[in-house]
Amino acid sequence: MRSGRTFIISGPSGVGKSTVLNALLARHTDLAFSVSATTRNPRPGEQNGVHYHFINVDQFREMIARHELLEYAEYVGNFYGTPKQFVDDNMARGRDVILDIEVQGATQVHTLRPETVRIFIAPPSWDELERRLAGRGTDSPEKIQKRLVRAKVEFQMAHTYDYFVINDTVDGAVRELEAILIAEHCRPRERMEMIDG
Amino acid sequence: MRSGRTFIISGPSGVGKSTVLNALLARHTDLAFSVSATTRNPRPGEQNGVHYHFINVDQFREMIARHELLEYAEYVGNFYGTPKQFVDDNMARGRDVILDIEVQGATQVHTLRPETVRIFIAPPSWDELERRLAGRGTDSPEKIQKRLVRAKVEFQMAHTYDYFVINDTVDGAVRELEAILIAEHCRPRERMEMIDG
Repeated sequence: MRSGRTFIISGPSGVGKSTVLNALLARHTDLAFSVSATTRNPRPGEQNGVHYHFINVDQFREMIARHELLEYAEYVGNFYGTPKQFVDDNMARGRDVILDIEVQGATQVHTLRPETVRIFIAPPSWDELERRLAGRGTDSPEKIQKRLVRAKVEFQMAHTYDYFVINDTVDGAVRELEAILIAEHCRPRERMEMIDG
Repeated sequence: MRSGRTFIISGPSGVGKSTVLNALLARHTDLAFSVSATTRNPRPGEQNGVHYHFINVDQFREMIARHELLEYAEYVGNFYGTPKQFVDDNMARGRDVILDIEVQGATQVHTLRPETVRIFIAPPSWDELERRLAGRGTDSPEKIQKRLVRAKVEFQMAHTYDYFVINDTVDGAVRELEAILIAEHCRPRERMEMIDG
């Protein structure tokens, strides 16, 4: 059986990461998508166990104490973490696992597990990211400027990532993600074992 | 303009490397295939400049002296080398270049140019490689055994390669090669330049 691998997908808000991930997961039902635990309140329409595992701060601290989180980070006053069990169970069954986490969390996972593949979803240009943020109509001009600066900070921190996928079109971005998933299963460690027994 | 990259394809005799490469090149006419220079005699049907640049030993030595070869190696008493000019001209025009060279030559190129991607075409199993070698009907049983031992030596030397593509079916192998080519153009160095500058 081929080994399951873990792929981290990061990207700034407004880049269209969720759209790209949903398209990828719709086409590849064998991929396991990791649902994060968070202490933030559910937004309208968000379901527990689907969008997030919604837990309180005490529960979050317990998960940390029991080493049940692969990584955790704070973002705008709330905590977010990746339950370890789901990742390990799926990998053991030969399934690839997709983690949608930001750069701080990705660094933690990569330090613990250097074989994890890190992919950054980037905009075609900074102007285009600004247009997309403005087009959502959810943020004030000041908040958009803050998000843009944060995006540039993340972009600089992401220079050690393995891959940058540019979300120019959703189809193009999904095609690149699919290629990366296939290519990463051609690595010598996995393949030499297959051939030599 | 996106940068051209160099991809080295190696693999033992009998693995079906030429069939896979021909299928890849037929589907992707933008790829530049590097034709090696050699001092061996042309076989029936081989054309100068298409299969090889057929030159004599003096000419080969001159190319070495003028640093016109990216790598060169001896194989069964003959010399083989990669003309540097063709590789550099095509990369400068943004085209990917495919080098069909063996492990010794690949090591030379990778030492000079660490950004070169090395791909090893491997058989699904050693038994299957033996069947393919026997099926060609061109070698004596003793020669087949020699080729198998050589294949295992190359395989061990290739553990530092970036990728192992298994030629189970030609379509499957081409699909993996296509994925590797796409994925390698998603590397941070190339992509961060596109976005930031």
